[in-house]
Amino acid sequence: MDTIKQLSEGQKRELERHLSIIRRGAVEIIPEDALVKKIATSIVSGKPLRVKLGLDPSAPDIHIGHTVVLQKLRQFQDLGHEVQLIIGDFTGRIGDPTGKSETRKQLNEDDVKRNAATYEKQVYKILDPQRTKFHFNSTWLEKMNFQDVLQLAAKATVARMLERDDFAKRYSNNQPIHIHEFFYPLMQAYDSVSLESDIEIGGTDQTFNILMGRTVQGASSFKDSQVAILMPLLEGLDGNQKMSKSLGNYIGIDETPNEMFGKTMSIPDNLMLKYFELSTSITNEELLKLKQGLKEGHVHPRDAKVQLAKEFVRMYHSEPAAEQAEQHFINVFQKRSLPENIDEMHVRIDLLEEGNISINKLLVTLGFVSSNSDARRSVFQGAVKLNGTKLLDPNERVEINSGDIVQVGKRKFAKIVVG
Amino acid sequence: MDTIKQLSEGQKRELERHLSIIRRGAVEIIPEDALVKKIATSIVSGKPLRVKLGLDPSAPDIHIGHTVVLQKLRQFQDLGHEVQLIIGDFTGRIGDPTGKSETRKQLNEDDVKRNAATYEKQVYKILDPQRTKFHFNSTWLEKMNFQDVLQLAAKATVARMLERDDFAKRYSNNQPIHIHEFFYPLMQAYDSVSLESDIEIGGTDQTFNILMGRTVQGASSFKDSQVAILMPLLEGLDGNQKMSKSLGNYIGIDETPNEMFGKTMSIPDNLMLKYFELSTSITNEELLKLKQGLKEGHVHPRDAKVQLAKEFVRMYHSEPAAEQAEQHFINVFQKRSLPENIDEMHVRIDLLEEGNISINKLLVTLGFVSSNSDARRSVFQGAVKLNGTKLLDPNERVEINSGDIVQVGKRKFAKIVVG
Repeated sequence: MDTIKQLSEGQKRELERHLSIIRRGAVEIIPEDALVKKIATSIVSGKPLRVKLGLDPSAPDIHIGHTVVLQKLRQFQDLGHEVQLIIGDFTGRIGDPTGKSETRKQLNEDDVKRNAATYEKQVYKILDPQRTKFHFNSTWLEKMNFQDVLQLAAKATVARMLERDDFAKRYSNNQPIHIHEFFYPLMQAYDSVSLESDIEIGGTDQTFNILMGRTVQGASSFKDSQVAILMPLLEGLDGNQKMSKSLGNYIGIDETPNEMFGKTMSIPDNLMLKYFELSTSITNEELLKLKQGLKEGHVHPRDAKVQLAKEFVRMYHSEPAAEQAEQHFINVFQKRSLPENIDEMHVRIDLLEEGNISINKLLVTLGFVSSNSDARRSVFQGAVKLNGTKLLDPNERVEINSGDIVQVGKRKFAKIVVG
Repeated sequence: MDTIKQLSEGQKRELERHLSIIRRGAVEIIPEDALVKKIATSIVSGKPLRVKLGLDPSAPDIHIGHTVVLQKLRQFQDLGHEVQLIIGDFTGRIGDPTGKSETRKQLNEDDVKRNAATYEKQVYKILDPQRTKFHFNSTWLEKMNFQDVLQLAAKATVARMLERDDFAKRYSNNQPIHIHEFFYPLMQAYDSVSLESDIEIGGTDQTFNILMGRTVQGASSFKDSQVAILMPLLEGLDGNQKMSKSLGNYIGIDETPNEMFGKTMSIPDNLMLKYFELSTSITNEELLKLKQGLKEGHVHPRDAKVQLAKEFVRMYHSEPAAEQAEQHFINVFQKRSLPENIDEMHVRIDLLEEGNISINKLLVTLGFVSSNSDARRSVFQGAVKLNGTKLLDPNERVEINSGDIVQVGKRKFAKIVVG
């Protein structure tokens, strides 16, 4: 490519640096060479690229799954580019004229405004407001008349539309597809025409729609149609399905530090690195180090997960909140296997010697066992815990204080009151 | 049906009379019972029905093929109903945004106006201006915004559209169908919504589009969706293909009496009754009589065709013009097989006996044969004609006058000058 041949050595290194950041985590970039050319041109000219993301006007609560694309936008901003956030208010206002689609509920103007405000508040936890512009697609779409709409419709074919996975499936299953449904991808495509977007980012489920933007821009005699950057869909807490509010397997960025921390600790180990890569801002170098540490065994998965959880709380709340949430989690975790209400049981202070008592004696005193030999058996079975820690020697003398929890088996609990 | 039960005996007879006129020539009426109900209601209420016909804004020259639907409209007018003629100027102005369709050329406003004026002049040769209203579909279509268009598009499904013959064929042959093409039937359908049409008339090639009007009216909560009355496509002069200007097999209603007469005389005999039924205003009784006459052989096909030709000239010109055209045709027909310029040849008057001369002698005199036996041979071969009539007996004496044409074989002609 000519543009690249003209780069100085320094510019070439800069190009490689930009590309390595942009490629991080992306499933596909279509077409890759057009991206390289756009970045190179921007480096030479100093002119920022316009990077577009469409937002669903009906679901304004952002969760970690959504932040995958927002993180990518932030990376673009850090490289000097501009972000275009499109709120599909026009699409939302229309809803589904047949009234049959659950995913296309009709929103009124107040809904749209409220949702937009919610978005704004949330996305600035990740994006740089100086390099972010919100757009409502009603601005251009509501001005279009029938003739404009027909001209837009002429830019795509029926066969191409029926290639979209969901349409293809419904068509072959003889489920009705109403003609207006073809316009959702066309409207999204026209947004890119109207905003002259250089790049559009989305999850892999947006591949068809984003490429339609490329097609429609091309048919509108654009010089360089937009590049699609397709990000993976992040699995939710269950480790299987795409994170989504309706499935309940999500971590919302507006959740409290404790909820956020706790939910993060529940994700499966095998997803941890994916979460780090896609939804945090740790550098590529840190990411590599972490990956190696886990692989070689000198980083414990549980510690890495604590790091991830703290990272999220730090990003969406603050550093002190992250520390507090960790502490809270430890407390909660230690008590996790305990029932809600544990009976208090008195241990007479004269049974203690310097605050200590043998385990045998403690268990007999509490009435949890019928004899020393019964106590011994329980300990050897691993059934006896003090404050969550298993006790292994029936003759050991342990220190007890008021508030300590003694457990035998799965059912017997006592909260000690000394005195 | 309740409406029909409520009719008086007189009204029932009136209903039957109306229906027999409306059914004449129609291939299909969909649905038949809705038509019966609409006619019955109109008879009771005295309220005329609104009968719609869409006109192609790009082809304003009306030929006999087009008059099939116009005759049907005229029958409705004679029964007291109102005609709505829609000029698809909006559709015409858009043309085909892909620029690929020959049948969807883009028209400018002047084209549309000129074509509309042409239509108006022509259709009033058939329709009653008092009961005819012209509409331009731009009136309502150009007011529609994107949201309105989507609401219209939601009223039909992709699968249904792909049932239309031409779409089905193209889809299965992997030929592109651009999405805007789905809107031509939808716009035509919306015209029926906008005009609250009771009935739409068209050729059988319009079946899909007219039924789409029914669907869209129904989805727009119309009480009684329009009824489709589908007329046959009239074959052109070649007797095979649909009459059309581009094929050249048409009789234009603006053609001169002589052209009209001559072209009509050239249609195949087997189409004659179809032409009478569909494109003239002779009554059902006259039609039946003609049919029987032809069948039983006491009406010669050629005479019936002359009647048809005169009927057309009478309808689109005048009674005297019809007489003149017939005369002209006879003259032309008699001279049809003759070359443009025929040499005059003198026959001395003293060779005639009471104006007569034997054929042998005539041919020798003119120098067309070398001998009596040569003359005899030519006659027996059927090569000799006087004024287009074959002469069969070489010894026959025939009367000749100045101006008569004598022909031997394909090449030898003489115009006689006696004296």
